[in-house]
Amino acid sequence: MKQSHMLIPTLKENPTDAEIKSHQLLVRAGYIRQIASGIYSFLPIGRRVLSKVESIVREEMEKIGAHEMAMPALEPSELWKETGRWTTFGSELMRLNDRHNREFALGATHEEVITSLVRNEVKSYKQLPLTVFQIQNKFRDEARPRFGLLRGREFLMKDAYSFNESYESLDDTYQKMFEAYSNVFRRCGLNFRAVIADSGAMGGKDTHEFMVLSEVGEDVIAYSDTSRYAANIEMAPVVATYEKDTSTPKTMNKVETPGRKTMQEVADFLEHDLQEGIKSILFQVDERFVLALTRGDHEVNDVKLKNLYDADMVELATEEDTKRLLGCGFGSLGPVNVPEEVEVVADHAVASMVNVSCGANEEGYHFINATPEGDFKVDQYADLRFIQEGDPSPDGEGTIQFARGIEVGHVFKLGEFYSERMNATFLNDQGKAKTMVMGSYGIGVSRTLAAIVEQYHDDRGITWPKDIAPYQVHLLSMNPKKEEQKELADQLYNSLLEAGIDVLYDDRKERAGVKFADSDLFGIPLRITVGKRASEGVVEVKERATNDQSELETSEIIDFVKNWYKA
Amino acid sequence: MKQSHMLIPTLKENPTDAEIKSHQLLVRAGYIRQIASGIYSFLPIGRRVLSKVESIVREEMEKIGAHEMAMPALEPSELWKETGRWTTFGSELMRLNDRHNREFALGATHEEVITSLVRNEVKSYKQLPLTVFQIQNKFRDEARPRFGLLRGREFLMKDAYSFNESYESLDDTYQKMFEAYSNVFRRCGLNFRAVIADSGAMGGKDTHEFMVLSEVGEDVIAYSDTSRYAANIEMAPVVATYEKDTSTPKTMNKVETPGRKTMQEVADFLEHDLQEGIKSILFQVDERFVLALTRGDHEVNDVKLKNLYDADMVELATEEDTKRLLGCGFGSLGPVNVPEEVEVVADHAVASMVNVSCGANEEGYHFINATPEGDFKVDQYADLRFIQEGDPSPDGEGTIQFARGIEVGHVFKLGEFYSERMNATFLNDQGKAKTMVMGSYGIGVSRTLAAIVEQYHDDRGITWPKDIAPYQVHLLSMNPKKEEQKELADQLYNSLLEAGIDVLYDDRKERAGVKFADSDLFGIPLRITVGKRASEGVVEVKERATNDQSELETSEIIDFVKNWYKA
Repeated sequence: MKQSHMLIPTLKENPTDAEIKSHQLLVRAGYIRQIASGIYSFLPIGRRVLSKVESIVREEMEKIGAHEMAMPALEPSELWKETGRWTTFGSELMRLNDRHNREFALGATHEEVITSLVRNEVKSYKQLPLTVFQIQNKFRDEARPRFGLLRGREFLMKDAYSFNESYESLDDTYQKMFEAYSNVFRRCGLNFRAVIADSGAMGGKDTHEFMVLSEVGEDVIAYSDTSRYAANIEMAPVVATYEKDTSTPKTMNKVETPGRKTMQEVADFLEHDLQEGIKSILFQVDERFVLALTRGDHEVNDVKLKNLYDADMVELATEEDTKRLLGCGFGSLGPVNVPEEVEVVADHAVASMVNVSCGANEEGYHFINATPEGDFKVDQYADLRFIQEGDPSPDGEGTIQFARGIEVGHVFKLGEFYSERMNATFLNDQGKAKTMVMGSYGIGVSRTLAAIVEQYHDDRGITWPKDIAPYQVHLLSMNPKKEEQKELADQLYNSLLEAGIDVLYDDRKERAGVKFADSDLFGIPLRITVGKRASEGVVEVKERATNDQSELETSEIIDFVKNWYKA
Repeated sequence: MKQSHMLIPTLKENPTDAEIKSHQLLVRAGYIRQIASGIYSFLPIGRRVLSKVESIVREEMEKIGAHEMAMPALEPSELWKETGRWTTFGSELMRLNDRHNREFALGATHEEVITSLVRNEVKSYKQLPLTVFQIQNKFRDEARPRFGLLRGREFLMKDAYSFNESYESLDDTYQKMFEAYSNVFRRCGLNFRAVIADSGAMGGKDTHEFMVLSEVGEDVIAYSDTSRYAANIEMAPVVATYEKDTSTPKTMNKVETPGRKTMQEVADFLEHDLQEGIKSILFQVDERFVLALTRGDHEVNDVKLKNLYDADMVELATEEDTKRLLGCGFGSLGPVNVPEEVEVVADHAVASMVNVSCGANEEGYHFINATPEGDFKVDQYADLRFIQEGDPSPDGEGTIQFARGIEVGHVFKLGEFYSERMNATFLNDQGKAKTMVMGSYGIGVSRTLAAIVEQYHDDRGITWPKDIAPYQVHLLSMNPKKEEQKELADQLYNSLLEAGIDVLYDDRKERAGVKFADSDLFGIPLRITVGKRASEGVVEVKERATNDQSELETSEIIDFVKNWYKA
């Protein structure tokens, strides 16, 4: 393709709103342009790299027998009302009315549409399992769109849905999908982890997120330094054992702690280690109130609290409720003399604590020398805290480390959540009606693109992996005003095209410096420059990522490029 | 692909709402399913045929140097307000507000978005001409969605936009696009015509619609029986000459015509031919009132009236206005004694009329023996009527015939309509700022699919052209319970796949009759049946369109299929 008449506007400066590299570089190099907050156009070279990712996804889906289809973006509200998500999805779901005032959701996901289709069309176990996928723009009205393609409001996604006759069959589909996802992200050149994730409000069971390791990721992953174990930190169980403090319990004593509210302030004031204090937080868990206790250096994980009570909702209690129930504000809460209607639940670490401090449920006072069971009652002990770096890995191998990740994929055993609510049944081989068992599987295609740039760039621009690059070769002439350079470059362009090599030809009448800078910014893996030695038929070949360069006869170019891409 | 675990639900009966063949067959054969009025899902084989059309479009676009990009479906209202189309597009434009109450249009077309992009990024004549395209779902809230994919509310479209430095350059791009479109529809196997069309409210000049000839088309095409001339009937100029009636004008006379209102009723009552009466219709043309006269057997073409006055709006005058201005209702209007404020315009045919009848502007009365100029004044004569079958072709070659057409493509010289309103300028080679000259070019991809089915079907199902079919071969075994049939079919399936042939394998345990009926419905061009002679290694090959069938050794199959597709 000739660059002169192509829409690839490059910028010297980073756009002011772009905080992270992928956002900065994709805009600067002319891959994308913002149309509105969180809404982007893909310019021609942007569309090309997107197609590359799409093709990889498509191939891996087809390999495991998933069939591509296409559902509409306009989804009738009636379907969403059947599952209750018209309400529960909240304000991320974009909605509109048609001219007859019928309500539609703008496709954020398609569980309802596909389940409605399948319940109408699939009747027999003979037709199962069935897996379909689609690649299309999805819409989510993010409260704070940011980071370019990482968190947008309209974005390209692959979503797949499986329908199985049993949970065993779902396990099988899930495993195939898991492997297909691993292949996709491996082929995209990404350093990623498959991470145990929270199944959230979907009522499903197993679920993994595919996380690309990156400092700009919004999620924190806890992973083992020696095994393949990796989990969203919300999900990682703590298997640490605590040595019981063998000191003799002393008499608990109330002391003044004027104005000290945080754990650190209290520990400093009372001159003890952070871990010698008990942290007490009052939660509302559905209808009940729960005082959660952890060691002072630990953090309550509210997902664990939610799972413990099998609850729909966990929130910090309001200041009003806190005062009413415990007689003080957040900074003085403690487990001593708690009224009946408040349950006390403590992390396992608390059981080992002796003679420690805790809030006195009285503004400006704490207890010292408090000991569980002796001085206060604990209704139950549980794994309640976030895992920390240095904790033993839950799989028993190695020690936990933290990393940040960008979620690019998600596989999910939905079970019967949708099929039950929407009455998607089939007749099994005994002729009995059974509810279908479902899975859903997503890949953020445009987000994957951004994640690739996060892992493939340097201070001059993008350094695409071979299989994702918009073109295989960037051809340019240093000075197209010189006839022999222009002629040789034109010739080379035609031979590369004829050899089936994707080539972008910078035929612009620009200074060499501008062309080189743009070329580095674009990140096409191989650059071929026709320069001073054009008259001898010699050109320069440079690898974008490594800066390795060499001079080659034009007759050697085609073989060189083909071999380089095969390697 | 094995059919057993694929979502291809076939129906024996036509869906009750499906009036035309493409709608009936695409639903019955499991290509599409309706989700809401005018909104469809493409099931796996539907998605495949859609991809075939897409690929042809993409190839032809790339051949003429158009670059694929992708603009979002969510378009900020601010852009549409710049061109005024936020108002003028009317209720077909679907609209929604985001969580911050910002207004968006749901992409019906992208002139505004692309013009905004190009005005920001393209500054120099060196970057022009520039042509981009995209293939994506579009949204239009049709008042009456119908005919399946022919008139939907969410549909797949290819839209392209060109930016040129001059009208000459636009002509060049337009011509290339015109040829690319001809190639696309030819490769889709369609019988079509490129038709001169109305440039409508867009302010552009040249425009052609690509019409697939079909009885179910909503547009009428006037074409020459001997030349390539074809036009939307609204657009075809009438070049007929009329012989002047040489009778001597008689004295005009008012006669009673009780209850006679239509031209036919009056002609019958007065016992003369339809063409011996003058038809008079009162229009409101922007702010003025115009009484349009045609011969009794002709029809006023309001597009011509609109163009004559360079008007924005042409409507029938209300009954109220008619009574106020001319003193009677619609059925008695005539050109005699018309007040100053009503202009009288007549079709050329009227100039030749002598001693004819016309309304008397008095309920229940007509004049007879009226003659233009003698008995009433005509402010101007013009080409005002619809062309008719039998009229001479406007290009001077042959005679006009009518045909119905489905509009599948539209090429349009927009000129400066958008670039002027949105201030899209560039610096020319003299360094002077000039307004860009634009074109826009659309193909209804999903509609093209339906048009293909309208031209390719028989009473048993679809008969896809080679390049569009979802698979090249439909393989089935008559009785898979017989081991030798199943084994041979499995073997053949694998050899076909290995040879790179797209094959759908009906491996279902269904009766042969069901399989044959489904196969005919799907319309895959070649069917290979493994039946009674399986043990001898002999199978039956049948061409779907012609019913030609032959028996072949399995060893001959691959070559046969490859050669058949090459032919």
